[in-house]
Amino acid sequence: MRFADRLNNVETSAIRELFKLLGKPGIISFAGGFPDAALFDVDGIREATLAALAAHPGAALQYGATEGFDPLREQLAAFMASKGAIEVAPSDLIVTTGSQQALDLLGKTLISPGDKVIVEGPTFLATIQCFRLYGAELITVPMDGQGADVDALECLIAQHRPKFVYLIPTFGNPSGATLSLQRRRRVLELAVRTRTLIVEDDPYGDLYFDAPPPPSLLALSAEVPGSRECLLHCGSLSKVLSPGLRVGWLIAPPALLAKAIMCKQFSDAHTSTFAQAAAAQYLAAGRMPAALARVRAIYAGRAAAMVQALRQDLGDAIDFVPPRGGLFVWARLTGSNGRCADGAVLAQSAIERGVAFVPGAPFFARDPDRATLRLSFATVDEDRIREGVQRLAVALGLG
Amino acid sequence: MRFADRLNNVETSAIRELFKLLGKPGIISFAGGFPDAALFDVDGIREATLAALAAHPGAALQYGATEGFDPLREQLAAFMASKGAIEVAPSDLIVTTGSQQALDLLGKTLISPGDKVIVEGPTFLATIQCFRLYGAELITVPMDGQGADVDALECLIAQHRPKFVYLIPTFGNPSGATLSLQRRRRVLELAVRTRTLIVEDDPYGDLYFDAPPPPSLLALSAEVPGSRECLLHCGSLSKVLSPGLRVGWLIAPPALLAKAIMCKQFSDAHTSTFAQAAAAQYLAAGRMPAALARVRAIYAGRAAAMVQALRQDLGDAIDFVPPRGGLFVWARLTGSNGRCADGAVLAQSAIERGVAFVPGAPFFARDPDRATLRLSFATVDEDRIREGVQRLAVALGLG
Repeated sequence: MRFADRLNNVETSAIRELFKLLGKPGIISFAGGFPDAALFDVDGIREATLAALAAHPGAALQYGATEGFDPLREQLAAFMASKGAIEVAPSDLIVTTGSQQALDLLGKTLISPGDKVIVEGPTFLATIQCFRLYGAELITVPMDGQGADVDALECLIAQHRPKFVYLIPTFGNPSGATLSLQRRRRVLELAVRTRTLIVEDDPYGDLYFDAPPPPSLLALSAEVPGSRECLLHCGSLSKVLSPGLRVGWLIAPPALLAKAIMCKQFSDAHTSTFAQAAAAQYLAAGRMPAALARVRAIYAGRAAAMVQALRQDLGDAIDFVPPRGGLFVWARLTGSNGRCADGAVLAQSAIERGVAFVPGAPFFARDPDRATLRLSFATVDEDRIREGVQRLAVALGLG
Repeated sequence: MRFADRLNNVETSAIRELFKLLGKPGIISFAGGFPDAALFDVDGIREATLAALAAHPGAALQYGATEGFDPLREQLAAFMASKGAIEVAPSDLIVTTGSQQALDLLGKTLISPGDKVIVEGPTFLATIQCFRLYGAELITVPMDGQGADVDALECLIAQHRPKFVYLIPTFGNPSGATLSLQRRRRVLELAVRTRTLIVEDDPYGDLYFDAPPPPSLLALSAEVPGSRECLLHCGSLSKVLSPGLRVGWLIAPPALLAKAIMCKQFSDAHTSTFAQAAAAQYLAAGRMPAALARVRAIYAGRAAAMVQALRQDLGDAIDFVPPRGGLFVWARLTGSNGRCADGAVLAQSAIERGVAFVPGAPFFARDPDRATLRLSFATVDEDRIREGVQRLAVALGLG
């Protein structure tokens, strides 16, 4: 069987192989990239679903508009407005089948084979593969604890004239990093000056620990004339309410949104109206603020436990910037005292010691830093986090 | 803004413009392509959802496997087995976000720009656009009341060596036609002999009126050695349970299924587990046979009312083969006595008389037959169907 040429651009993730080992009994897993199912507001979602089926049984179960279920678009616009001084009309956004579909629609709408796209190094693995399936050549902008290096970004834009720049500016996956306010302004100014599209993927911004992060690029665009027209924003209920609903959204300039709607029509017709109607009722019921406050506190506690344990048990064997939100600690093996400095090698011996994480190299579209690793604290309680980090120390010869 | 080159291959459907007129008060619409929302088993879906949230609240709301929620895959395999003497294992199928996504995944997995694909003339509009977005060159095989012309198909396969052949063999959209048993066997033999992939799209097969249709190509493949390896089958709960769930499935040989899973991973990660868990519980509860019996009887009555009214009021001004299932009457204006023989022209005057339908030309990937029209009886009760056909007669100068 001869498959499409575009499949030559991707390969099944090395991480999938690792995940097969996670079923081993007793493994403490820092490998996931998902929220803790035990924290889902199941009662709230049940009530919302019953309310949706009572209020509009026909519409919730029938075909719907490709651009989204109107009551949900209204709620999402209000949710966005509640998070910053930004006006978002329901017609400024379309509902997507998770934010993964927003990425797919961007690829389908914008990327011709050979087009260049700038992504952070490291970035979300499924973004890399998704854009490559459309034939993108990916360029990576380096990052530090303050997010993407904007000086480097400026050079790369001038050199490559990319179709767009893809950033996860807040509590990035896998980096955990947050782009500073000053850099955010510079990104927007750069976008306007060079007429470059910027995609802001923001699934984690609501999961802050102590204080809210800087305003999103979308919110800041109100202060930088002309920048809103250069900006796309992907949002998602997956990390804050439930991934299983598959409800995300894409905010984009009208001409691009129209093309994305056409592409979506032929991708899945529309996102489940059943899930959309339930999500709309959930947001309308006003349960989100309390649900968010609850998960923020729990994730903050787990992150703090992991940071403290890593410092205590691993010392100078690893280097990391403590995250201020999100799901991840991104760390780098220093190789001090001749210890292991390869994330993939450590991942294997760690599995043998009963703890799992994801090595960092696959998150780089090019020039992987093999000393890196991603540790998620989201689905493990604090005691087990401390136990898992001890096992990691043993795997590193520090036990 | 410069969009991807692939967008040059498609245009927003002319039908969308027509649909904007449907909001006019008092219009009787035969234009839809959807089931009647008033017939949905809302109670059954509510119960199934509550059961799903009770049985596995975490899994139903969490990320899930890209290939689908296992309990649903098991139920769908059993559902397929119940419809014919065919063995389908849960691992033979993946769950898709409606069968539209199965089409999208076929395009992504198989079609390189310039590849040829054979489709029926006429065929499902969103198939045409979906495949063209991946750069397919579409070839059309002519149809009659018995479905695709298999002699013509044989010539076209020899001439064009297509990547695959896409058929809706049972109660087709828009044709309403059903491929005869003899032609089904010939299609399978032809597939084996010429090593050609056949895609069977089967969203309507369960909606028969008097008697079940011939076995699906998938079921028949048990009788034609080697044909199962040439066969892909797309199923859907949209027409028989609820389109809003967006639950379809794709059955394909293992090598192709593996590539489709990879493409789906980067398209939407997975289909809503919330919807999948509800669908699984619905099927497990055994409600489908009774639900199907009910909608079959109602659609059969509506189809009969439309057929009778068309014969009585339009006489020799149109020609059609009465459907034996599905949602559509596909008709051809004969132009007798100098009457209108252009579906698009008639659609305009029909709207002015208070009745809507879809002209047939857009359903042809090439060489449109402009005399054709598609009339759906599914969402209109029998009295209104008779009234609508009378209005159509008036629009044709027969009032």
